[in-house]
Amino acid sequence: MKDLIRLKRDGGALSRDQIARWITGVTDGSIPDYESAALLMAVTIRGMEREETVALTDAMLHSGRILGWNGIGRPTVDKHSTGGVGDKISIALAPWVSACGAAVPMIVGRGLGHTGGTRDKLEAIPGFRTDLTADEFVALTRRIGVVIAGQSGDLAPADGKLYALRDVTATVESRPLIVASILSKKLAAGASGILFDVKCGGGAIMRTREEAKALGDELVAIARELGRNARAMITAMDQPLGLCIGNANETAEALGILRGQGPADVMALTRVLGSAMLVLCGVARERHEADARLDTALESGAALQRAEAMIQAQGGDPRVTVDPSILPHAPNETQVKADRQGFVSSIDARALGMLLVAMGGGRETKEQEIDHAVGIRLVRKVGDVVKAGETLAIIEARRDAPDWAETARNGYRIADAPPAPEPLVLEAPGR
Amino acid sequence: MKDLIRLKRDGGALSRDQIARWITGVTDGSIPDYESAALLMAVTIRGMEREETVALTDAMLHSGRILGWNGIGRPTVDKHSTGGVGDKISIALAPWVSACGAAVPMIVGRGLGHTGGTRDKLEAIPGFRTDLTADEFVALTRRIGVVIAGQSGDLAPADGKLYALRDVTATVESRPLIVASILSKKLAAGASGILFDVKCGGGAIMRTREEAKALGDELVAIARELGRNARAMITAMDQPLGLCIGNANETAEALGILRGQGPADVMALTRVLGSAMLVLCGVARERHEADARLDTALESGAALQRAEAMIQAQGGDPRVTVDPSILPHAPNETQVKADRQGFVSSIDARALGMLLVAMGGGRETKEQEIDHAVGIRLVRKVGDVVKAGETLAIIEARRDAPDWAETARNGYRIADAPPAPEPLVLEAPGR
Repeated sequence: MKDLIRLKRDGGALSRDQIARWITGVTDGSIPDYESAALLMAVTIRGMEREETVALTDAMLHSGRILGWNGIGRPTVDKHSTGGVGDKISIALAPWVSACGAAVPMIVGRGLGHTGGTRDKLEAIPGFRTDLTADEFVALTRRIGVVIAGQSGDLAPADGKLYALRDVTATVESRPLIVASILSKKLAAGASGILFDVKCGGGAIMRTREEAKALGDELVAIARELGRNARAMITAMDQPLGLCIGNANETAEALGILRGQGPADVMALTRVLGSAMLVLCGVARERHEADARLDTALESGAALQRAEAMIQAQGGDPRVTVDPSILPHAPNETQVKADRQGFVSSIDARALGMLLVAMGGGRETKEQEIDHAVGIRLVRKVGDVVKAGETLAIIEARRDAPDWAETARNGYRIADAPPAPEPLVLEAPGR
Repeated sequence: MKDLIRLKRDGGALSRDQIARWITGVTDGSIPDYESAALLMAVTIRGMEREETVALTDAMLHSGRILGWNGIGRPTVDKHSTGGVGDKISIALAPWVSACGAAVPMIVGRGLGHTGGTRDKLEAIPGFRTDLTADEFVALTRRIGVVIAGQSGDLAPADGKLYALRDVTATVESRPLIVASILSKKLAAGASGILFDVKCGGGAIMRTREEAKALGDELVAIARELGRNARAMITAMDQPLGLCIGNANETAEALGILRGQGPADVMALTRVLGSAMLVLCGVARERHEADARLDTALESGAALQRAEAMIQAQGGDPRVTVDPSILPHAPNETQVKADRQGFVSSIDARALGMLLVAMGGGRETKEQEIDHAVGIRLVRKVGDVVKAGETLAIIEARRDAPDWAETARNGYRIADAPPAPEPLVLEAPGR
């Protein structure tokens, strides 16, 4: 192990065999955390070549069980977002795509820092279980056609252990480590097609288009090298997605999409991702056909029914699909008022994500409990006109919160002229 | 701690306060090893600015007790070698300098990897104790004028903890970490003057003159910044020092110096270091005066008597100063024969150091027990003439060892022409 650490410290490339031995030792606990911590830091500073990242992903993938979907009778497809603020897309997307004829066995994570996590959002539904065993995950996917659950202990366990260590050693931001972490659990869930939604902008891990493109390319290349069909989209994450930031309120917003309601950006992004997934897994030959299938599933109510079935199968109250009032809701509303007139020119997604953490709706450390009921409701978004004294957003908390309202106000920029329109989808795969 | 790790990861400079909080946490155990491991790796790759190294040294120094020598009635002076093969100098040097009128409170370390350690060598003397408490260390220094002991738990405890972690995380080779480690324990022992013998060459940590110079300059600058008088010499460590490599045999060789016997290089280096120490601490005004004092102490037997007193006070059998046969001695001798005629042009100190480890006389991990009795005795050194079949060296082991003899032979290079003479002292302080 010491030779391995030294090699990476000095900028060398680790062999497939060395990486496999490391990950075996991480998995069985024979390599102490301090050795892995030193190696993780060396990897973070020195980087990894493509072949090393492939070997790391492969070793982490094989550290546990790999699910297979033979005989399920439909193509399997999954989506992964690199994380942003207000990104509740998966909650509507998975059942919707499933209702179009694909199976969607989706493993999701919890929120950390300024970005939320689908797992937390779904847990706002009373009774909803995300801690399925791998066997439950397989059985439900086969029966319902869609499951959204947390990573069970037997899928890519090395990733779980390394992630916990990265979190406390400032080695989260390493691209090869991000890639191997994302891919190992996604590949372990076994879908044959994977679509990556690489978020780009101030509210994302990848701040620039170049970084996002590089991450997307690497995710796709390595997924393909390991035998999966993969594509990446790059989408904007400067202002928050949709109008809700929080857990219960984002789940409500996402489920609204399946009733044809909700903010246009959430609807558009869910649709464009769903379309790409259907093409990726072969349910549709091209985009127009995929769009038509999505429209049919939405209009017929099939997508909403699929969500209902999924929620019921996972122990949640299925009435939530039509009655968001059964979700927890924080009692106190504090208005965030504009202090001048003009056009909203930007909303700082990262700042609002961190505000949610401060309000108790997110976590700074993995152990923290979160409050699903609190949230931020955006009333104005980028491009909207506002007059002084009008409401920009509403803080939904367990107390009156002028301080948090002030923080939220500071996240808004108001200008005299309307901002140039920015596309939501920055880069899409062909077809 | 995470912010601190991130800052260094990205190449920033840590503040005095941040470093102090880290070392406090290392000392009281509140910072887990994996966090320190990540930070150590970041420091190793990114380096530290001078001010950071000063702050780190100071924090480590203040992690425990700092000895004071007020009222001892003589100047206090110490020497530190950065480590080599066959470097037994301290064993003769400390009592010799003490016999000239200085007090020498010397903290020494154990061998690790290819370099030996004075602490191990002295422990070859039956009964000799190096695990003195700080109180014993102080009392004996005051009474005898010289002590050579291991670092007790209450001197720079943060160094002990960090060193153990560096050893297993491939972060030993970082210059700021080396400097802070050396200085914190040397400064804690309290001598007002410290001479650094920076080893340079294939058998040393510092392979090049530039590296050695940089290390020496930094040691001196930081020791001075923290209020001590300091000088550095750079001395050659290409071939082993003296004729013995091992623990018992090196102790015997060093004590021989005090009887005016032994290899010229060991005698010369002990003398030149002793002379510099006496000038450094003010016992002598300049080199010639110091040399004269050393000669007197040697010829009068005062130096040998001082060694005897020290050994007796530390529980060892003082007869060892005149009768090396009471030291353990491995029973089997295997000759290392020259396979050709010529001049010895080089002897690979590192290879012979590692051979001693393989023979059981050194350690690769800190926990390993060592065998004081085994060793390598050099019969030919660089510049010597040898004929085919003549003995180059003798392996002293617990079995016949043609394999080890073969390894030792491979460490010798024999050429047709005599090698250019290389100086032992590459750089000396002025005066």
